[in-house]
Amino acid sequence: MPDDAPAHPKSRGAARRAQRRGPTMEDVATLAGVSRGTVSRVLNGANHVSSASLRAVQEAMRRTGYVVNQNARSLVTKRSGAVAFVLSEPSDRLFEDPVLGSLLRHCTQLLGAQGRSLMLMLAGTPEERERVLVFARGGHVDGVLLVSMHSGDPLAADLLGTGVPVVVCGRPPADGPSMPYVAADDRGGARLMTKYLLDQGAKRLATVAGPGDTPGGVERLAGFRDVLGRRATAKVIVRAASYSIDAGREAMEQLLHACPDLDAVFVASDLLAVGALQALSAAGRRVPDDVRVGGFDDSAIASATTPPLTTMRQPLSQVAAELVEVLLQLAGGRTASSRVLPTTLVRRDSA
Amino acid sequence: MPDDAPAHPKSRGAARRAQRRGPTMEDVATLAGVSRGTVSRVLNGANHVSSASLRAVQEAMRRTGYVVNQNARSLVTKRSGAVAFVLSEPSDRLFEDPVLGSLLRHCTQLLGAQGRSLMLMLAGTPEERERVLVFARGGHVDGVLLVSMHSGDPLAADLLGTGVPVVVCGRPPADGPSMPYVAADDRGGARLMTKYLLDQGAKRLATVAGPGDTPGGVERLAGFRDVLGRRATAKVIVRAASYSIDAGREAMEQLLHACPDLDAVFVASDLLAVGALQALSAAGRRVPDDVRVGGFDDSAIASATTPPLTTMRQPLSQVAAELVEVLLQLAGGRTASSRVLPTTLVRRDSA
Repeated sequence: MPDDAPAHPKSRGAARRAQRRGPTMEDVATLAGVSRGTVSRVLNGANHVSSASLRAVQEAMRRTGYVVNQNARSLVTKRSGAVAFVLSEPSDRLFEDPVLGSLLRHCTQLLGAQGRSLMLMLAGTPEERERVLVFARGGHVDGVLLVSMHSGDPLAADLLGTGVPVVVCGRPPADGPSMPYVAADDRGGARLMTKYLLDQGAKRLATVAGPGDTPGGVERLAGFRDVLGRRATAKVIVRAASYSIDAGREAMEQLLHACPDLDAVFVASDLLAVGALQALSAAGRRVPDDVRVGGFDDSAIASATTPPLTTMRQPLSQVAAELVEVLLQLAGGRTASSRVLPTTLVRRDSA
Repeated sequence: MPDDAPAHPKSRGAARRAQRRGPTMEDVATLAGVSRGTVSRVLNGANHVSSASLRAVQEAMRRTGYVVNQNARSLVTKRSGAVAFVLSEPSDRLFEDPVLGSLLRHCTQLLGAQGRSLMLMLAGTPEERERVLVFARGGHVDGVLLVSMHSGDPLAADLLGTGVPVVVCGRPPADGPSMPYVAADDRGGARLMTKYLLDQGAKRLATVAGPGDTPGGVERLAGFRDVLGRRATAKVIVRAASYSIDAGREAMEQLLHACPDLDAVFVASDLLAVGALQALSAAGRRVPDDVRVGGFDDSAIASATTPPLTTMRQPLSQVAAELVEVLLQLAGGRTASSRVLPTTLVRRDSA
């Protein structure tokens, strides 16, 4: 339905006002040398429009000064054009992690190419979570990308209650509501890294696991246990308090105390591995000669450590693409299945 | 003006529809034990509302299931409630820099507390810049926070032409349009660090400068020159191609080649300093014994390097607060002056 011929009489006023104040969609179509339907498709998100037509319409809009009244249009289309990227993460330190920045950039880019906007929302406090729910209920967003869900977080269930499409980034906890998700294969990746460290000759292998209330904290430890079997005793496992450099350093210090003869360690995130490398260096252990270190993420920080980190690569651009695809399928009234994407080992110098 | 008593007859339909489908603002006010005016202020951004009243109203909205029709309301208030955070930065690697993540988090949090949303928009390609302009012209955002403006970037001038309030993060280039900005004192900070390195005994001081088309690239080099005077020869200055770890490593390699007897280096960003530390380590130079290294930013990465980085702290939470304050002043029809915030030296182990 072209947006200058609304079906609802109540929007005619908005269309008349738009016409009074300047150029019309027809002016844009004529100047761009395309049909009015093409202009309409561009305005509605540029689906099924060639890049040449897109550029011609954009140029014609610029030259005519054509302006869409988005608020009036939203009343007709029932679409806000915006997707909320919700960070359900109490920690202030989450933004330190380059994984998040990369995911955010990819999602913004992909949504922008679809003519949609990314609205960044925090959900670390009860007030912030309430605001996300008000937005979802009010129709201000067409869907929610929910990132970093802790178990016990009430937001997921509350969001489902609003009827807004929701896709979770990362495997939701078993005790949470069932909803579509996109995740890297944390458990499979942890298995690969654990096997690799053993293949490199590790005799006393330990792990710094992530927090137990996060998907990565659970799944990556499960992968480690899958391979190590009965050798995965409590002595060789220390959980970090959060995904931060400081927590990684503290966990590694504990591990060195509990298991002083360790010769390899799988650290469940690159940021934690930065702290682990600091603790090993402070303890006079050489990496990889005395202790091999394997990380997880392959974030920007992995090549910045001393020595550069051998780690599991999460396919973040693909995670973002699948998140957006699943969300738009749900928003279009279709069903969508969850996706689990494989990780790959990136060899550098730490193991 | 309470938003359930619009002055414009065309919005009465929207109010009637809202009433027909459920609870009213009066219901919310009664349940919360506050006046309708207080509910209205909460809905309009929670200015001048006590946190107790805010919580009471939010709880009452939750219990009654009251939902605001934001689209209908926007037609009355001429406000979208959203602010665009625009990254005018061609590099894909910008998100690697924790400075940006920190700024983004602070701005999202501050805007959220004001009942506003942050819309993240990239402006690295002509198509993306056009989309930002369409949004600004269409009234989809109430203001723009423009981050990381390169000189020669046409976006700033084009945005000014839309009439939407714009605040720039970082000092705009001299050849650009005049607009309010909030920046850390790059030049003053660089002077402090340069003096500090000399005070520590540096005899042969060099610098890795940022790209020449960025505010930090210009101002931080100017501060270095202010102190070093005639000793700031071309030999002791190498410009990095971008703000990335790789560019920092390459620049440091060039500097070691041009000036092999250097004993201290001021590196114009923490991310560049990570690369510089790698190059020094690869060249067998010990830090700080052989070469002292000073950075700039005090981002999350500064404490993750080996050795931890002595650097200049940008007051990012204050930069974010002033950006939001200036933008809301402009959006409220008031004038606002630019702000330049002092930086402080953070001593760690690299110098």
